[in-house]
Parts: sequence; C-alpha cells; structure tokens
Amino acid sequence: MKNESIISNSKIKTLLALQKKSKIRNDKKIFLVEGIKEIKMAINGGYIPEEAFICIELYSNNNKEFLNFFKKKTFISLKVFTKLVYRDNSGGIIVIFKQKKFCTLEQIQLSSNPLILIIEKIEKPGNIGAIFRTADAASVDIVILDKKIDLYNPNIIRSSLGSVFIINKIKESFNKIFCWLKNKNIKIIATCLKQDAKNIYKIDLSTSIAIIIGNETIGLSKKWLKNANKIVKIPMYGTVDSLNVSNAAAIIIFEAIRQRFFKE
Amino acid sequence: MKNESIISNSKIKTLLALQKKSKIRNDKKIFLVEGIKEIKMAINGGYIPEEAFICIELYSNNNKEFLNFFKKKTFISLKVFTKLVYRDNSGGIIVIFKQKKFCTLEQIQLSSNPLILIIEKIEKPGNIGAIFRTADAASVDIVILDKKIDLYNPNIIRSSLGSVFIINKIKESFNKIFCWLKNKNIKIIATCLKQDAKNIYKIDLSTSIAIIIGNETIGLSKKWLKNANKIVKIPMYGTVDSLNVSNAAAIIIFEAIRQRFFKE
Repeated sequence: MKNESIISNSKIKTLLALQKKSKIRNDKKIFLVEGIKEIKMAINGGYIPEEAFICIELYSNNNKEFLNFFKKKTFISLKVFTKLVYRDNSGGIIVIFKQKKFCTLEQIQLSSNPLILIIEKIEKPGNIGAIFRTADAASVDIVILDKKIDLYNPNIIRSSLGSVFIINKIKESFNKIFCWLKNKNIKIIATCLKQDAKNIYKIDLSTSIAIIIGNETIGLSKKWLKNANKIVKIPMYGTVDSLNVSNAAAIIIFEAIRQRFFKE
Repeated sequence: MKNESIISNSKIKTLLALQKKSKIRNDKKIFLVEGIKEIKMAINGGYIPEEAFICIELYSNNNKEFLNFFKKKTFISLKVFTKLVYRDNSGGIIVIFKQKKFCTLEQIQLSSNPLILIIEKIEKPGNIGAIFRTADAASVDIVILDKKIDLYNPNIIRSSLGSVFIINKIKESFNKIFCWLKNKNIKIIATCLKQDAKNIYKIDLSTSIAIIIGNETIGLSKKWLKNANKIVKIPMYGTVDSLNVSNAAAIIIFEAIRQRFFKE
C-alpha cells in the first residue's frame, strides 16, 4: 500500500475534536465514521467521503480494493489510530464524511401503507442508535426526530451499525409533523405507561400509522398524548413498570410488522 | 436526621473498589446498589443490606422513613457521594448489600406453562440489564446465564432498574441445563440469523419453551444450535442483518407473551 503520508498534530487534534464535539462537527459540516461496515453504509446512504485514515497494522488485506474508493487517504500509525477511534473493533479505518441536509416532509416518498416512527427527546445515544437499527430492520418509511439530536454522534452511528445513514430521517417541529400526518391520513399511535392506555395486541397497527416514542424518564409530551388517535402500552406482568425505550420501540414496531405480514 | 458519622478514606477506597471491581465484590461477597428504586428492588428480592450511605443534600425528605430500614447508616458529604456513585440521578443513597447464593435447577418452581430465557455469552452490561428488565416485565420463569457474568456489575443493576434482583436466575453448565430442559419437556428455541431459520411469527411459542439468545457478535454456540427443537429468526426487511441483542430478545419474548395471552 502506497500513498503514505505523515499526519500533523493539528490534524490529529481536529479528528479528536470531531469525535467528541457536536459543535465542531456541525460548524465544519463533516463527521467521522469508523469500521468498514459503517463506512459502507454511509457511502450507500449517499454521504461523500473526504479523507480516509488507515492503520496498516489493523486493516485487512481482504478489503484492499475498498481503499480505491477514497481519493484522499492517509496511513497512520497504530498509536495514532488507537487514539482516534471510538471503539476497539473498528477494522483499521476511519473516514471523514461531509454532512448531508436532511429531507423535508415534502420530499418524502411514502410507501402505500406507511409505517412511521417518531422519537421525542430520547437522550441516550445507545438507545437512539438501537432504535435506528430496528427501524432499518423493519424498513420503516421515515424516522422523525427532534432538532437537537446530533445523529453524527459516534455512539449513535456505532449502535445503529450505520443504519442511521440509510433510513429516511427528518427533523421537524411538532406542528408541522402533526399537520402533515393529518393531511396524509396517518394515525398517531402514542406510547404511554398509563393504566388506561390500550394494549398494543388489541389494536390495529396494520394501517398507515406513526408510532411515537418518548423520553427515557418522562415519556411523551402532553401535545402528542392529547393529539393521538390511540394511546397504547405494552402489557406488563412483573415488578418494573417500564421497559428500556429501545426495547419498547422494538416490540411495538415488530408488532406492526407482524400485523401487516403475518396475521393469522 | 441523626447518626451522622465520619467516613474514613479507607472506607471510601473500599466502596470505590466495590463499584469498579468484580473480584473485590466476589471476594467480599458484597455489592453496592444506588437509587431508591433499585435499593427497594434488592430488598424485595431478599437481599440483606449491610450499611447505607446517605447524602443529605440529595436525599428527598419524602423518603425519610425509608432510612429506618437500615440499622447502620453513614451520612456523607456531597463531594464524597459524587465520587462514589455510578450515575447522576441516584437519589442520594447508596447501600452495601450481602450477595446471595443463586438458585439451583432443582430448587426452581416452574409455572404450569413455563417461559424460560437463556442468555449465552452476552457481553455488554447495558444489554444484560435491559434483557433482565424485559424478562421481569414478561414475568419469565427463570433467566439462565453463564457462570462468568457478574450480575452485581453496577451498569447491569442500573440498566435492569433492579429487576436483576427479582427474577429467578441460575448459573449452570450447558449439559445440566440441556438435560433439565429435556426432562421437563421444555422445547429449546434457539435464535439465529441463518437464512433457513424459521420466522418467529410462523412457529408456536405458546407452549413450554426456553428461548436461547447468543452473543452480540458471534451469536449462539453450535451446541445450542445443534440441540435446539427449533431455530428461529426475526424477519428482516432492511439493510442491517441483525438487531441489538436486547431488542431481539424483547421482540421474541413479547411474541411468546402475545401468543400466550392475546392470540386472535
């Protein structure tokens, strides 16, 4: 492998800042992705790579051809690479990508029987990533999220396995989302732990719906609960009164899948 | 509040070691729990508290009576408390509990139509905790796990919301578990990503079953796959080929719940 070049200390500092600071990512409109799988997902999702950093000691020869994809590449030492990466098993490559504009509601092409997921104020990157992974597995039409969530957070990218790059996603205000859903005749299914919420196994999730999932601690805001077509919950039989939010999302999304494709 | 006493530096060191080191927890046969909810779960699960450490600045007056439960209590400063706790929102109390022996297979009282969960070599504490939370919510009969997993890890306790103290749990070897399941006529449902695995929505999960979930990266071992009555998978429609392991467990466990209680 050729093209070896020396990485400057200031470049290392920039890369570290990109890993750690949302502000830097957003000011520079770039972000980092590590791991072959995740990098391929970003490319498949239409993100443009700017520069690849490769650690020969860790990079597999089987993936040699993949490097041709990158116009600008820098080979770095194991010591520098280890400093830069967020996780252990990152396959010896980390790539700077350009950020992309999110779609708008108007641009979205919905399927004939849409399944939409809206996540409101979910805080933990691990939960957000796992929810994107499930949304991808279920091939939901869009994930709609708060403006504040930074999807270029390395922990979100990692726990989504890169599906965060593939799924259609929108950041929009409540009012705009609400009007759009009404206009498209998509039913709002809000999740809640309240006693009188309907059991997810007793309501119809097979039609056009938007499932709304709320914050880990406080759940959904009143505006969603007030304006929902149905308020639903997962039946609970034990001592805990709630599930991990990504687990709850998985159960509800896949119940919608079951009702669509595998109803007895 | 009285009984104030001064905490020694060596005591602080011991508490920190208990938080961080599995070996110390197991040598001393004690462990720490922080947060009112989790502490109550440990007490409900039959664990005996040894000593409570309370930070007056953070502890809510509404929970004052709860402190009568602890014979030995030490009031500590905010500075020390902040050092000791694993997470932010721990309600100003941390308690040393005695470890308890796990049940044996012979001691377990199964329900008439058992639902058992076996987790094999799952690594991330957050996943293990979330799986216990789901197992509790679904009121599974037992969770069976590897001997190596240290359930007193603070991250497992936290992400299980303390349900790790409530659920029946067993650590046992493959051979013993396998014979016991056969003997009890409990079907082994192994999860796998293989193409020819059966769709979970097309098989019967309403009878006596043990659902087996494998490691985050490598999945289940051959011995479980070879000896399973059914090998199952969740249908996937997107670009990722797998789900987060706790999300996958949640989907399958709750599909078993649906088939038991809410079949159309």
